[in-house]
Amino acid sequence: MSKPLDKETLNGWLQAQNGWAKEGNTIAKEYKFPTFRAAIVFLNRVAGLADDMNHHPDIDIRFDKVKLRLSSHDAGGVTERDLKLARAVDHSSSAG
Amino acid sequence: MSKPLDKETLNGWLQAQNGWAKEGNTIAKEYKFPTFRAAIVFLNRVAGLADDMNHHPDIDIRFDKVKLRLSSHDAGGVTERDLKLARAVDHSSSAG
Repeated sequence: MSKPLDKETLNGWLQAQNGWAKEGNTIAKEYKFPTFRAAIVFLNRVAGLADDMNHHPDIDIRFDKVKLRLSSHDAGGVTERDLKLARAVDHSSSAG
Repeated sequence: MSKPLDKETLNGWLQAQNGWAKEGNTIAKEYKFPTFRAAIVFLNRVAGLADDMNHHPDIDIRFDKVKLRLSSHDAGGVTERDLKLARAVDHSSSAG
């Protein structure tokens, strides 16, 4: 469960996604919103998902932009858990 | 109003505060909480204050830690507006 994904699997996943990219030991994506307030609403949705999965991304807020970085520290890299949270965020984001 | 503070004024202010320090063109402080959830509650309080003042800090969330960086981009440095928001955050933080 907590083994880092092999390069091929991760690259395949990244190619199929919108906006996620490898950044060091993490996968990262920046989301842009019309307002600071909208960015904070998104952030609270991410926080809820993170708590549900007990898996917490690094989050940087720059006014109307929110950047997420996901990795599994215990595994020392990106695992299936990270992809699961990434998918959940994107699903909630397009749904909301 | 939007002139950067002179070095002496800023240093005097920093010495009188708990945890704020100069970081490049900004003043920065890291807050630590018992849980991720508590960090997010704090973040929402900061967001409310930022919207009230129409002045938005850079915010980095690392699980149970929240780092704020304040500067007045239009003035190219730290102004009275930044100190005002910093004080408001610390006041709300100790009050909450």
